[in-house]
Amino acid sequence: MKNTFGTNVLTTIFGESHGPAVGGVLDGLAPGIPVDREKIAKKLALRRPQGAISTSRVEEDEFEIVSGVFEGRTTGTPLCHLIPNQNVRSGDYDAVRDLARPGHADYTGFVKYHGFADYRGGGHFSGRVTAALVALGAIAERALENRGIGIGTHISRLAGIPDRGFADLDADIASLSDRPFPILDGAAAEKMQAAILKAKEDLDSVGGVLETVVTGLPAGVGEPWFDTLEGLLSHGLFSIPGVKGVEFGDGFALSDMRGSEANDAFTPKEGGVATKTNRNGGINGGISNGMPLLFRCAVKPTPSIARPQETVDLRTGKAAAIEIPGRHDPAIVHRARAVVDAVTALVLCDALAGRYGADWLGGTK
Amino acid sequence: MKNTFGTNVLTTIFGESHGPAVGGVLDGLAPGIPVDREKIAKKLALRRPQGAISTSRVEEDEFEIVSGVFEGRTTGTPLCHLIPNQNVRSGDYDAVRDLARPGHADYTGFVKYHGFADYRGGGHFSGRVTAALVALGAIAERALENRGIGIGTHISRLAGIPDRGFADLDADIASLSDRPFPILDGAAAEKMQAAILKAKEDLDSVGGVLETVVTGLPAGVGEPWFDTLEGLLSHGLFSIPGVKGVEFGDGFALSDMRGSEANDAFTPKEGGVATKTNRNGGINGGISNGMPLLFRCAVKPTPSIARPQETVDLRTGKAAAIEIPGRHDPAIVHRARAVVDAVTALVLCDALAGRYGADWLGGTK
Amino acid sequence: MKNTFGTNVLTTIFGESHGPAVGGVLDGLAPGIPVDREKIAKKLALRRPQGAISTSRVEEDEFEIVSGVFEGRTTGTPLCHLIPNQNVRSGDYDAVRDLARPGHADYTGFVKYHGFADYRGGGHFSGRVTAALVALGAIAERALENRGIGIGTHISRLAGIPDRGFADLDADIASLSDRPFPILDGAAAEKMQAAILKAKEDLDSVGGVLETVVTGLPAGVGEPWFDTLEGLLSHGLFSIPGVKGVEFGDGFALSDMRGSEANDAFTPKEGGVATKTNRNGGINGGISNGMPLLFRCAVKPTPSIARPQETVDLRTGKAAAIEIPGRHDPAIVHRARAVVDAVTALVLCDALAGRYGADWLGGTK
Amino acid sequence: MKNTFGTNVLTTIFGESHGPAVGGVLDGLAPGIPVDREKIAKKLALRRPQGAISTSRVEEDEFEIVSGVFEGRTTGTPLCHLIPNQNVRSGDYDAVRDLARPGHADYTGFVKYHGFADYRGGGHFSGRVTAALVALGAIAERALENRGIGIGTHISRLAGIPDRGFADLDADIASLSDRPFPILDGAAAEKMQAAILKAKEDLDSVGGVLETVVTGLPAGVGEPWFDTLEGLLSHGLFSIPGVKGVEFGDGFALSDMRGSEANDAFTPKEGGVATKTNRNGGINGGISNGMPLLFRCAVKPTPSIARPQETVDLRTGKAAAIEIPGRHDPAIVHRARAVVDAVTALVLCDALAGRYGADWLGGTK
Repeated sequence: MKNTFGTNVLTTIFGESHGPAVGGVLDGLAPGIPVDREKIAKKLALRRPQGAISTSRVEEDEFEIVSGVFEGRTTGTPLCHLIPNQNVRSGDYDAVRDLARPGHADYTGFVKYHGFADYRGGGHFSGRVTAALVALGAIAERALENRGIGIGTHISRLAGIPDRGFADLDADIASLSDRPFPILDGAAAEKMQAAILKAKEDLDSVGGVLETVVTGLPAGVGEPWFDTLEGLLSHGLFSIPGVKGVEFGDGFALSDMRGSEANDAFTPKEGGVATKTNRNGGINGGISNGMPLLFRCAVKPTPSIARPQETVDLRTGKAAAIEIPGRHDPAIVHRARAVVDAVTALVLCDALAGRYGADWLGGTK
Repeated sequence: MKNTFGTNVLTTIFGESHGPAVGGVLDGLAPGIPVDREKIAKKLALRRPQGAISTSRVEEDEFEIVSGVFEGRTTGTPLCHLIPNQNVRSGDYDAVRDLARPGHADYTGFVKYHGFADYRGGGHFSGRVTAALVALGAIAERALENRGIGIGTHISRLAGIPDRGFADLDADIASLSDRPFPILDGAAAEKMQAAILKAKEDLDSVGGVLETVVTGLPAGVGEPWFDTLEGLLSHGLFSIPGVKGVEFGDGFALSDMRGSEANDAFTPKEGGVATKTNRNGGINGGISNGMPLLFRCAVKPTPSIARPQETVDLRTGKAAAIEIPGRHDPAIVHRARAVVDAVTALVLCDALAGRYGADWLGGTK
Repeated sequence: MKNTFGTNVLTTIFGESHGPAVGGVLDGLAPGIPVDREKIAKKLALRRPQGAISTSRVEEDEFEIVSGVFEGRTTGTPLCHLIPNQNVRSGDYDAVRDLARPGHADYTGFVKYHGFADYRGGGHFSGRVTAALVALGAIAERALENRGIGIGTHISRLAGIPDRGFADLDADIASLSDRPFPILDGAAAEKMQAAILKAKEDLDSVGGVLETVVTGLPAGVGEPWFDTLEGLLSHGLFSIPGVKGVEFGDGFALSDMRGSEANDAFTPKEGGVATKTNRNGGINGGISNGMPLLFRCAVKPTPSIARPQETVDLRTGKAAAIEIPGRHDPAIVHRARAVVDAVTALVLCDALAGRYGADWLGGTK
Repeated sequence: MKNTFGTNVLTTIFGESHGPAVGGVLDGLAPGIPVDREKIAKKLALRRPQGAISTSRVEEDEFEIVSGVFEGRTTGTPLCHLIPNQNVRSGDYDAVRDLARPGHADYTGFVKYHGFADYRGGGHFSGRVTAALVALGAIAERALENRGIGIGTHISRLAGIPDRGFADLDADIASLSDRPFPILDGAAAEKMQAAILKAKEDLDSVGGVLETVVTGLPAGVGEPWFDTLEGLLSHGLFSIPGVKGVEFGDGFALSDMRGSEANDAFTPKEGGVATKTNRNGGINGGISNGMPLLFRCAVKPTPSIARPQETVDLRTGKAAAIEIPGRHDPAIVHRARAVVDAVTALVLCDALAGRYGADWLGGTK
């Protein structure tokens, strides 16, 4: 389905970095959900560049709702929004139009679209398009809150520096929601930011790992084959530029364990069943088990770096050197957090609508 | 779409561990592809339990084609096949019918299907269903060979023991296709098998990591948003029971690198562009770049172990102990290899048919 | 999605007329629905040839369930069934292998599948494949009955002879369910059968119109754009071989009315709203309004006729005459009734699961 | 998929009659197709109200491209456009907010969206939303022209007055493309317009039948089951407000014929096969046969009429009378023509991309 994703709640995104706007359509979300512009603005702010550790291109992210909201709530019909592009300096890219930036989609996009795509600033491949996702995700998160479902993401590792793990989930989620640099342990945050600045100084960039927890998700959501919760989430998460790995629960570490260690023992709890550990990240057989959902995304270092790099001229096919002009992010991990939250919320709204019906997440009048 | 997967080439699977048969439908694959029963049988054999390191339940995997093949070739209409279940000892499960096996989908399946699902041997959640995928995958692999596309998967780590990485890709792929225990380095194979037998002795199990390479994939396949090659592949791969992590190229290791290290420099090659390294696993911006596709799946240790485990009785909700009867696999990593190959082949056939049209993979008459 | 249809409840069909079997997969139907083999057998019998007015090829339609049923009820996991082909006389077709039968898909199938498709008896295009649909539809109808939704279809016109319209809906639906020749007015039935026999005598065939009513469907089902109830139903109904027109309510006759006549006035009813007339067939703006759903399918005359016809030899491209050997149906309208019921039930189960959730149609334990 | 339609070329629409704008996203259309703003404007003009026979609400239909077009051609990435709403007199609707207009979706929309939808002017159900479809369809039509595929639609009957049928297809298509009132026979046009004005005088409205022809479509497009050309087209066409019947070839008239009359005999033609008649509308077994595609849509009379009508108050559930204020169309058949053309073009682009690949319709650089 390409730029549309989902079965019952569908997300469509569009736009290019240097076009008039990026935007998205959210279709199938229940009617009656309050559309909280402040929440959307806050989420967009978390995705925006932040001070010295980010690019100096700052966008206002003026958020326009085109359809699907009436008297402050979702109507149930498709919600389209636009975020106009501002502060666009296309001229930055003219000099390197034909030079494929390593680590970017310039070459693959050139092959796929036969040279017709908008090359400026990555065009439709630009991380800028994730702003559209973040806005829709903020609306989806609000819907999940109606049902007591919360999402929180922190940087669990950056430039090799670890954050502490989730502990008191509700408190951790609450604290993350206000932090532009999403770390649970303040000391780690300082070290990470220093590592980012050092990379910037070196005309280089760093990557990191984002860890996400979801609380309040009922047991029984997901399918055994092919629409496992892991499959649905990873499908969405790998769309986020820079994500090159996704793991659930203990993920890759599980592959070094024995079964007796990896299995989460069941234990009775009020009104159901819990597990004593959560090494499987709240998912058994592709279906939520009522424990917190837990997963991690590996984010590669920002490919746009100021150093000269080896490349090929797409028109001539000859070797060339490229120095990428313009503004660079020495790290995007902290900004990608808002996108991970958004994709998570959108995927879960879709899965929940499929299981409990079109109105389950909605309001009443 | 639940048990159906794909856009242009669709895979549907069905069946329960202790029902009459498992099977699948492959729809949209081009006409004229030779359906090689020996290749299918060989792939099914690679998925079957193997000697001391596996369960003692051995299936003949008699493969019946119900539709979609005529005079030895695909017709282009839906291909349905069945693999009848044999050697089924349902009685093994009666004693533990209501006891959720830790690490399995018994509890989540019970919640999702309200107790109506076939509980015997995991029912529709059983790894047995992957035989249906492997058979369809073998047909898809044959189609890819028409276009010079090869797939190979080895165990890159098991119980902490590493195999060597891919080197001479064509030779490595060829050698793996004949090895029931898919390892590139013979010495590693011996150590791994010893570790599996030790786990069995301990009434326990081990997990591992599978690494896959795909050669010959043209550049330009995949979408920028949501149907990235990573997203499509991971969506399918996470359906494989036990897979809890998927990473592309250097994956999680990329998150500890700097951009100057993670970026794959471009360099001219005959008729196109290559990259000097392949840290991004042959994918930039969700789209193939013409380099070998490379990814890894984390497979958790087999959850069925002979040791007593803590659980809950699903009918009473009370704590209980379970000793899982029946036959156990101390490792399924080597068997999962055939399923990873199959999912990979099916996903790629789908993506290629979308890009180049319904007949691109087919034969001519 | 080709041979798979639906969003939440998915129907997949496969098989060829002269292959081992036809069959289907029903995925996403709620767990706990009684699978009534007698009801399935009865529906299959209604689709089978009947005496002098049909072909002399009679199939036993032995119905095998492969998966998805446990202890007599749906499990919620994919339900696969097979209907083995028997009484197959492939030799009938050898002489005319390369001659495209007018009105059939021989030529279009040849172009689409490049000559690789099974040509015998129409292969995958054969009306025989509808048996698979009918079996799945019978299960879906049973699910709808759980919710008080009934479906009835009669021949409203055949060879220009009209049946009376629906009057007492519940009684009419009940009476149709037992009639192999589905007519409300016995006198019309006799005239129609005489017309069929006359056509047979003339080595010719007749067509007709099927009219369907659905009772008990709640208001609010369907979407304003693209997945209108009309769109969903027609998409499925046009798959039925021979259907060349679909109209809802007064359909084409509406186009000759004025608005004041075509509009159905609203009037209060117990617990909701009714319309005084039902010219719109129970659908406004693509969404059910709580009135009976009413639609008609135009079925063209059976294309297989015994007379010599002009055609082209597919291998040589030259003009040729064809006399179709084998057994012919002078009418299939009465047999198509069971297929229309089945498609209707499957489409409605899908739409209802989307609106009210995956379990709404299911049973309780 | 609700407001998104298609498999390889996807159309998404959004917007409400009295919101800021209506618009749409076209995803998957090949890169390099010229985006001809004049053609789009012309098509939008054909959909707009025209003089005395239409509503007096006239929209400028300013067309804004938000994404997916670069240097005058499609990029291959999603194309979003907006048509801002102007000349909106919402006040017209306040007095009748709670009164369901007969023949409209007010009641069904109220039930489906629980009263949260934008009620003004039909909201998302408004025919206004079809402007978004028309704009996207104009781009799709341009793509089809690249491959020699032409589409033409005329009013074959209005208020019982017939137009002549298609004769010289290319000339007829060309002549229709410039006629706001799409009739082949000028005398019929005058009679029809008189009938429309008479209905207006009577505070009433009329309906009609639209007949569409498509030339140049290759043989082999469409699927045997479920994605037949008839099924795909009808699925889209029934989204057009007011369409209540769709028939292909001779459609309902076929049901009164005998097989010997209904079958189209095959005959050799240069480079393939033709049929001597075209009673099946260019489709056999769901697949194009290379003859012109021919189908008809029944359009009911405009439900908005100035006469008082019986209805129910949605808040109180009590009987009420409604006099619909605002501007009315005594006929929308002629305006619906542009929407039928658009849906046809979008469906065919989708089917062709599936068969021949993503780039088949595109340009070269």
